[in-house]
Parts: sequence; structure tokens; C-alpha cells
Amino acid sequence: MERITIIGLGLIGGSLGLALKAAKLTGIEIVGYDKDKLAAGEARRLRVVDKSEPVLQRAVRDASLVIIATPIMAIRGVMEEIAGELRENCVVTDTASTKAIVMEWASQLLPVTVSFVGGHPMAGKETAGVQNAEAKLFAGKPYCIIPAPDASEGAVRVVTGIVQLLGARPLFIGAEEHDRYVAAVSHLPLVLSSALFTLVRSSPAWPELAALAGSGFRDAARLASTDAELSHDICLTNRESVLHWLDRMVEELGRYRELLQQGQEEELFKTFARAQLDRDTYVAAGPPVREPVAAEELLTSGEQLAALLVGERLVRRVKDIGKLLDGRQERVRRKGVEGRDEP
Amino acid sequence: MERITIIGLGLIGGSLGLALKAAKLTGIEIVGYDKDKLAAGEARRLRVVDKSEPVLQRAVRDASLVIIATPIMAIRGVMEEIAGELRENCVVTDTASTKAIVMEWASQLLPVTVSFVGGHPMAGKETAGVQNAEAKLFAGKPYCIIPAPDASEGAVRVVTGIVQLLGARPLFIGAEEHDRYVAAVSHLPLVLSSALFTLVRSSPAWPELAALAGSGFRDAARLASTDAELSHDICLTNRESVLHWLDRMVEELGRYRELLQQGQEEELFKTFARAQLDRDTYVAAGPPVREPVAAEELLTSGEQLAALLVGERLVRRVKDIGKLLDGRQERVRRKGVEGRDEP
Repeated sequence: MERITIIGLGLIGGSLGLALKAAKLTGIEIVGYDKDKLAAGEARRLRVVDKSEPVLQRAVRDASLVIIATPIMAIRGVMEEIAGELRENCVVTDTASTKAIVMEWASQLLPVTVSFVGGHPMAGKETAGVQNAEAKLFAGKPYCIIPAPDASEGAVRVVTGIVQLLGARPLFIGAEEHDRYVAAVSHLPLVLSSALFTLVRSSPAWPELAALAGSGFRDAARLASTDAELSHDICLTNRESVLHWLDRMVEELGRYRELLQQGQEEELFKTFARAQLDRDTYVAAGPPVREPVAAEELLTSGEQLAALLVGERLVRRVKDIGKLLDGRQERVRRKGVEGRDEP
Repeated sequence: MERITIIGLGLIGGSLGLALKAAKLTGIEIVGYDKDKLAAGEARRLRVVDKSEPVLQRAVRDASLVIIATPIMAIRGVMEEIAGELRENCVVTDTASTKAIVMEWASQLLPVTVSFVGGHPMAGKETAGVQNAEAKLFAGKPYCIIPAPDASEGAVRVVTGIVQLLGARPLFIGAEEHDRYVAAVSHLPLVLSSALFTLVRSSPAWPELAALAGSGFRDAARLASTDAELSHDICLTNRESVLHWLDRMVEELGRYRELLQQGQEEELFKTFARAQLDRDTYVAAGPPVREPVAAEELLTSGEQLAALLVGERLVRRVKDIGKLLDGRQERVRRKGVEGRDEP
């Protein structure tokens, strides 16, 4: 029995649990931990995990894969607490919205005997908590994968396999690149939404404004309902990139303002028309296909995932002996998967 | 047979037609006009109107109710063209997103023998055109009603009746107040969305950004797909209010920026937390109930609407004779509606 441990049973951790359970994994036990006993109890009740473990160190002991799905600022403490308990060749991943700082913590705090592969699902909704978890939360969404420089290729395959089981699109990217890019498409919209809602809500005419508001305001202000701890942690851990994009946004608004103020009708129309055309094109094109995964690499069952988890441990343990590796490949082949060389 | 004429068969005009047809109006014929012959043909094919009329003046002749659902900047020209053709006591309304300028045009251009009651459905979507029309587009949405100072009470009842048939919530409001308020909850989100999309789209890293973007970016940038003519017309006809809210938004973003720049963690967290709490409260409360309409005033069938349209004309025509008015009330009463004094 291979153990997968999910630390942090909120919307993301809970949805991961549900998705992994929905994949009907055989030979895999999903253990959950949350420092909030109520959340842990709720996760058990909702069958998000097979069992919950009240002591963090015990939860990760013997785990083949540990997924840290806590708030960003809690990750450092979690890593410190679990570092001494992780078994050799354990694969550790996370789900944090900023990556450079998490990669740094992992490199400082986790033992060299484990592999860290950072993760960031570009999914979520404005309602937090395990009670809002959904197995389909990640389906069709991009899922960033950022392997540590010393992560084994097998560990990368395990995390990629999980991402595929979730129905998400694996996206390999560097940590700094990731943080700059998500500042534009995720963190800036978050700050805009929060600022828009705060501004309108603080007006003395708020009751009238609320009565008038339609779906435009609802959507534009939706991200204001993002969990405040998440918003705060994102801003602090990705400060420079968020500031950069905020400044550029204010410049862009200034450009619109000038066109409007100076009555440059034609240019104003062109600006709106270009945005409309470009966004319509973007939406019509659907999600871009990048880094396609070859069919033979797709993990299609929990059994294969278990085999991978086992394989990864074996491979690392006996790096110098090819025999066991060949044995695993045989076993995987018998289960209908194309074998593939591991390092 | 009473005639309702819809001028402008786009998303809004088309949806109005579908909603009125869905109400199974008896004794009412819905005529459509669009200067674009293709749109008019499509509207006929989709049965959005009972018939389309290729000549604007002929389309409004003998109409009891004329709904102008063209782009804002086209309304002035439409009013000039139809002014001489409107029959006495005709009720004229519109669906424009800004109201002060439309009320001014109506007062200058329409004959005193007709009643103008401005309208603005707080509904829409980012896909324009009659092919995207939906009978349910207005259901549950606020619908602003702005009667001209000299509009008859009967005309206001006709437009209110239409709004109720659509399933929308009538909201009585002054034109200047309307324009200031919608600048905050509708026009500002529109400009923000367009500027956000334009900014991100213009980045050299756009292919990567597009691959990473999730539902947060999608929703925050949704309004960038608003019809560019509508965005442009809104900004031009509500310039001062849009500029006012744009400036306040830039100030608010500056406040977030300062908190972030100066590392004021606690205040930043509080700001996000307040926005989250307030928005959650706002969403949980649902649409505010304002100006409730008494049950006996609700129009529940097309027959009643036809009676109102007839009644309005009769009432205006023989202001000095009470007899015909009493006759109408009798007739309406027989149909199960509480009679009510008309001016």
C-alpha cells in the first residue's frame, strides 16, 4: 500500500483528495492532515481522504508522495516540521501560487534524500474551504510544474502523472518565470478586483449602486472574495512582480483616461475594438497546446501511479543496479504501459 | 391589433423581441427594424419579431409602443427620423446605457404628443448580435426606468409592464443619478477589463501568459469583449462620470500599492479581508429589494399589456371626458386586473 499525504485540507487540498479518490486508485491510501481539527473532520466526513492523521509528523511518515496544500506562508513551517520524517526518495510537491520562495525553502529545508517538484494548479474559485472542494476543479486547467534542480526524473513523472489524473494540463516552467507571469494573469486581476469592490463599496451611494449592479460588476469584482490570507500571502511573496504589473496597469488606465479626456474618439474606438478582437480571438482559440505529453506517457490508472511511486523509490534506492529497474519496467509493461528508461 | 416596434435588432433588441414573444401576447404584433438588412433577416428567421419592416418610418407608423435598441450614438438620428411618423400618445422608450443625453435628445426631438420613458436593462453579455439573443436575458436583472418629466402616468405603466413581462426588476431613478451610478458599477468595470486585457495581450510573453491564464483572468477580462461601439459610445456620452471613477480607481490602486511597497502586512491583510467579507455579504444578501411593485399592478399577460396600450391612447385622447376611461377600467376589471385611476 503506497501512501499519498495531503497537508492542508482546504479548497485545493480537498479537491486534490476528491480527484485522486475519483481516479479509483488501487494500492494507494490517501492520508490527510489539517492543523484545524474541524477541517480535518469535515474532510473525513466528505471522504476527501481515506483517513486523517492528527499529528503532522506521523501523517507524512512512510508516504511516497506528500502534497503541501497549505497557505503559502505556512509552507516553510510545514517543511521544517516534516523534514526529519520523510522517507528516502519521497516525492514532495506543493500547490502554492508563488514559486520562487517555495523552491528556496525546499532547497534549504528538505533533506537531499527526497525530491521536491513544485506545483501550481491555475484553478480555484472564490469560495474557500473543504466543503467547496470539487473533484473536477482542475479539469482542463493549466497546472504548472517546477522541478527542483536536483529532483529525480522519476519524481517529475510522478507529479506529472498526478496532474494528468486530475485532468489538468501540465505546464513546465521556471520558478522566476512563473512568478512574473502569474503576477500578470492572476495576481493583478486579484488586486484589481479587490480594489474595485472596495472602492464602490465605500461610496455613500452603495445601496443604490448595489441595486444597479449587474453581471459585469459581479464578474469584475468576483476575485475580491478570494481568501484574504491567500491574497495577502501572494502579494508578500511576489511583491516585486505584483508592483511591476500594478504600475503598468495604472499607466494603461492613464492611456485610456487621456483618450477620453482629450476626446480622441477614433483612437478610443480603435483601442476598444482591438481589445475586443484580440480577446474574442483568444477565447475562440481555446487553451493553447504546449508541451504535449506523448500518449504512452499518460497515466491512465491509479495502478500505474502506484507502480510509478514504487518504481521511483526503487530506482533511487539502487541507483547502481540496473536489475530492479528492469524488473519494474517489466511489471509496468505487463500492465499495458509502454516501458521507458529511467535515469 | 396593437403594434410594438423594436428599432435595432442586436443582442438587446433581439432579446426583447424573444421575451415579448415568449409572453404569448395576444392582440399585439411585434415589428422589427434594423438598418442592417442581414440582421433584420436573421431576426425574422429566428422569430424574434413577427415581421420586419425595411423602412424605418413605416416601421413606427401606427405603433403604440416604440423601443429604440440601437447603439447610443444612433438614437439621435433615429429620433429625428421617426418624430414625424409617431402617432399621438405613442409610448417611446430606449435601452441605452447612458440616460442624460438620451433624455435630452427625446425632449428636443420627439413631439409633445408622445410620451418618452427612458429605459436601461442592466443585462447583457459579451457576445453581441441577434444570434446571441435570449428571452431570459433580463430575468431577475435590474431595469432602470427614467420617465421624461412630461410622460403620462399611463406611459410609465406601459414601460413598467414591459419590464415586468421580461422578468426584470423595475428601478425608478433620475437620469443624472443613473449615469453617475452606472459609471461605477458598469462603465468602470468595462474600462478596467479592456485595459487589463490590452496590457497583458501587449506583453512579449503573451503566448506564455495565455497558456497560464485561468478563470480569474478570464472573468476579470470578460468585459473586454464588449462590443467596441457600445464601449466607445458609453465613454463619450458619460465622459465626466467615467473620468471621475477612473481617477478614484487609480487612487485606490495607489493605496494598495503603498501598503505593498511599504510592507504594511497587517493593513494589507485587513484591506483584503474587508473586501472579502463585504463582497461575501453582498453576494449572500442577493439583489436588494427596492420600490416593490404592488401585486395588483403586475401585468401578468399580454392581453393586459394590450389593454394598457389601448387604454393609454384612449386616456390621452379624451383627457376631458371620464366616460371612456371608466369603460376601459371596466374592461380591464373583467379581465381580472384591479382597476386604477389614470390621470
